[in-house]
Amino acid sequence: MRFIDAAHKAPSVGFMQPWRFVRVTDPGLRQEMHAHVDQERINTAEALGNRAEEFMRLKVEGMLACAEVLVVGLIGQRDGYVFGRRTMPEMDLASAACAIQNFWLAARAEGIGVGWVSMFDPARIRELCHMPIDSQPIAILCVGHVDAFYPAPMLEIERWDRRRLIQEIVFENSWGNTGLTV
Amino acid sequence: MRFIDAAHKAPSVGFMQPWRFVRVTDPGLRQEMHAHVDQERINTAEALGNRAEEFMRLKVEGMLACAEVLVVGLIGQRDGYVFGRRTMPEMDLASAACAIQNFWLAARAEGIGVGWVSMFDPARIRELCHMPIDSQPIAILCVGHVDAFYPAPMLEIERWDRRRLIQEIVFENSWGNTGLTV
Repeated sequence: MRFIDAAHKAPSVGFMQPWRFVRVTDPGLRQEMHAHVDQERINTAEALGNRAEEFMRLKVEGMLACAEVLVVGLIGQRDGYVFGRRTMPEMDLASAACAIQNFWLAARAEGIGVGWVSMFDPARIRELCHMPIDSQPIAILCVGHVDAFYPAPMLEIERWDRRRLIQEIVFENSWGNTGLTV
Repeated sequence: MRFIDAAHKAPSVGFMQPWRFVRVTDPGLRQEMHAHVDQERINTAEALGNRAEEFMRLKVEGMLACAEVLVVGLIGQRDGYVFGRRTMPEMDLASAACAIQNFWLAARAEGIGVGWVSMFDPARIRELCHMPIDSQPIAILCVGHVDAFYPAPMLEIERWDRRRLIQEIVFENSWGNTGLTV
């Protein structure tokens, strides 16, 4: 799949290439994963308290309707990789996220939609995909044709949160020091 | 800076936009950050054991030579963001990594080089940039013109590690189940 080729071209810490992709082609497995994600959707709504109803009205996954489902995971035995990770071992996740962003952009450039679902218990996805205990699932990607792309992020359109201004996210020399050089 | 615009267009978990950029325009601050990274480079070499010498011959940062240095950090008070993070709070880092990858690609498209330095103690960078205790520095970006781009990842050319084959990184339904559908 050429989007995976694009992902695999991403930079990675110490050239670690920590990403692996599990294509979910078994319909029963897809159903089981969806059932788990749907339960987690309810758990998330409960955790959101007074925004629960608003959350439940949002489309937050498309696992049953999409053309392809992929699980992205970090390899096991990552402790052997020290380069760029001695003080920040989580840089493996950062590298894999760069790979997913490459995948996303490559797909979007061809008019294919991608959704990154993160509403799951890693232990459950690890179990369903027979992943080693020291590996780490980080994404369920829903990939496929869409009727239309949103003109802005769906959560912006639905007023879940507002777009931050550039002036709010760029500082000079000192955190919080805004508005000087942008 | 238009590369930050590209970064800020990245998708983020629950439209959280957790990324912030600190432009380091103070030469003294850049020097102090570099001194810290250089010490961490030595610490990394020691941790690498029998590959220490090989590591020390590599160019792993360009902080003093590059045109711009930016620190990327995650905002504080992230516990309030539950959407897509209830079971995996580290999705904030994943979103910010997508933003950095956007920055990287936008720069590269204009012939500008970017390096992501992760050899630092977050506590020290937090201190130097006056960041809140609950924020998290994740990257020092070195940005600027380069004499030439490597034809392949530098660590591949230097044989630090080998490029994984696509067949090694794609599985079907079950982790480790390779070579079926690629």
